Amino acid sequence: MANGEIDVLAIGNAIVDVLAHAEDAFLAEQGLEKGAMTLIDAEAAERLYDLMGSAVEQSGGSAANTAAGVAGFGGRAAYVGKVRDDQLGNIFGHDIRAVGVAFDTAAAASGPSTARCLVLVTPDAQRTLQTYLGACVELTAADIDAAQVQAAQVTYLEGYLWDPPGAKEAFLRATEIAHGAGRRVALSLSDSFCVHRYRDEFRDLVDNHVDLLFANEDEIMALYEVDTFDEALQTVRGRVEVAALTRSERGSVILGQDAVHVVDAEMVPIVVDTTGAGDLFAAGFLHGFTQDRDLPTCGRLGGLAAAEIISHMGARPETSLAELAQARLEQG
Amino acid sequence: MANGEIDVLAIGNAIVDVLAHAEDAFLAEQGLEKGAMTLIDAEAAERLYDLMGSAVEQSGGSAANTAAGVAGFGGRAAYVGKVRDDQLGNIFGHDIRAVGVAFDTAAAASGPSTARCLVLVTPDAQRTLQTYLGACVELTAADIDAAQVQAAQVTYLEGYLWDPPGAKEAFLRATEIAHGAGRRVALSLSDSFCVHRYRDEFRDLVDNHVDLLFANEDEIMALYEVDTFDEALQTVRGRVEVAALTRSERGSVILGQDAVHVVDAEMVPIVVDTTGAGDLFAAGFLHGFTQDRDLPTCGRLGGLAAAEIISHMGARPETSLAELAQARLEQG
Repeated sequence: MANGEIDVLAIGNAIVDVLAHAEDAFLAEQGLEKGAMTLIDAEAAERLYDLMGSAVEQSGGSAANTAAGVAGFGGRAAYVGKVRDDQLGNIFGHDIRAVGVAFDTAAAASGPSTARCLVLVTPDAQRTLQTYLGACVELTAADIDAAQVQAAQVTYLEGYLWDPPGAKEAFLRATEIAHGAGRRVALSLSDSFCVHRYRDEFRDLVDNHVDLLFANEDEIMALYEVDTFDEALQTVRGRVEVAALTRSERGSVILGQDAVHVVDAEMVPIVVDTTGAGDLFAAGFLHGFTQDRDLPTCGRLGGLAAAEIISHMGARPETSLAELAQARLEQG
Repeated sequence: MANGEIDVLAIGNAIVDVLAHAEDAFLAEQGLEKGAMTLIDAEAAERLYDLMGSAVEQSGGSAANTAAGVAGFGGRAAYVGKVRDDQLGNIFGHDIRAVGVAFDTAAAASGPSTARCLVLVTPDAQRTLQTYLGACVELTAADIDAAQVQAAQVTYLEGYLWDPPGAKEAFLRATEIAHGAGRRVALSLSDSFCVHRYRDEFRDLVDNHVDLLFANEDEIMALYEVDTFDEALQTVRGRVEVAALTRSERGSVILGQDAVHVVDAEMVPIVVDTTGAGDLFAAGFLHGFTQDRDLPTCGRLGGLAAAEIISHMGARPETSLAELAQARLEQG
């Protein structure tokens, strides 16, 4: 594989997370789908925010979390996503650049405000996401810089991009440019409800446009409408170059072209907040992949980053992933 | 003491904290005064923010943290402070109301943006504060609601209010109204550099307008320009009804009218971030005081809240202070 100037170019919805603890009863009262990402409009976001407890704001966005993770491992990461030129947009831009990710997408000068995701963390460490997409709906194919895509070993796209109308076009344009340059395209299925919304399109993407597929077991089972993880595994086999399927505490299963690897999860003393587990798994995996590591090592790096992120609130790493990886890989 | 409808009315600079870890070398490079609160203008704030690492945003403000703490103990708290009607102002208002504090100060519709405090936490858990006061400069005596001050057992004022010009007037008006209604006025000296800026005025306040004084040892020594804690203790004695003097891991010394109490600090397994230690000490103390607890118990409640706040990042409690207090007081 020829090395690009960028290891991973991630494209996604640029979002600031608003994190708060909540009881299960609160989710029930508000009729929220526990564990899912649900889209809400500006009014519903205001209404829910008014009812939520005291919160902490932290930059988020699924693919942005992945880009931050790649940079945290010492990889060369870039990000494309749309914020508004407001205070939250400024925070988003600061935080992603501060960890070393190249981020040059022009902020929208008018229209909806920067996207917010209300993240409700229940006592079982599960997170329930209520997302107001805001300025993300302004992302279009014009925001894709062909030279940047050509320079990236892997262009990584989040399935959530199928929600805002113009982003899908940006997604497809990035895919074409990447393949035209002999680069790889990676897709995260993002969320099982998102898969339900776009199943046929996602199946087509997987079969015809995606080289590396990331999904958790709910998502891959939703994609193929099967009842067991193994059925999903057998169905996806041969459709992509690599499928990295995550199963929470049961670790991950990595399908390569010639082999299936089963990778155990890392030990996590206390799971505090599962927000970002999948995003950071993808970060570790892609970092290993773009450093030409073998697939089991990629899976272990993914598991390592996921373990770090679920041990604290928020979906951006608090520890040097590069140092964690060095210690872990020396340990064997 | 007649009970008011409000236990503690806190008045201060309404600020959103921007918390990040930083190395001592970074503070040195940027010429920042470690451990102090330094005022910076909008440009300096932008410049420093650009250089800072990835951050987390959380509502702060010294007296606002105290109000949140009083509410966390189950007390009736209210707050007066000025934000702008922008995204950070909206966050500030949400967070303080979400913990049960009454907050009705009108947001400024024009002028500077909501205040931000860049909080740099070094590996020794010390915090260095760089504050852009923003909309706080718009607070004036007109923001003081006489009926609210009259209804409050204690009106608590932060020394930091001496920085924005109009706030001093608001401070003095609140003091007059409180005393006119036979209520008590409490003052926190806030920061030793703040004391250096306003020493003569603060000495006059203590002698003539303050019933309950909160200070840490650096601040009280700066106020009286003495070299030892004991000299400061002897100097302040008799000047106020109660002086609550905090000494970090050495606990606190509480001077009443007839006695001096020495209260040990609570055990803290790991000190993560000292931001808000003084604010939460004041919260615990004032909650005890407004519940007619004796002074040593007030000091212990202060120490308990300070211990909670320094065990995690940020200056707003993450645990129910009411439950902590119940457990601690049962334990004796």
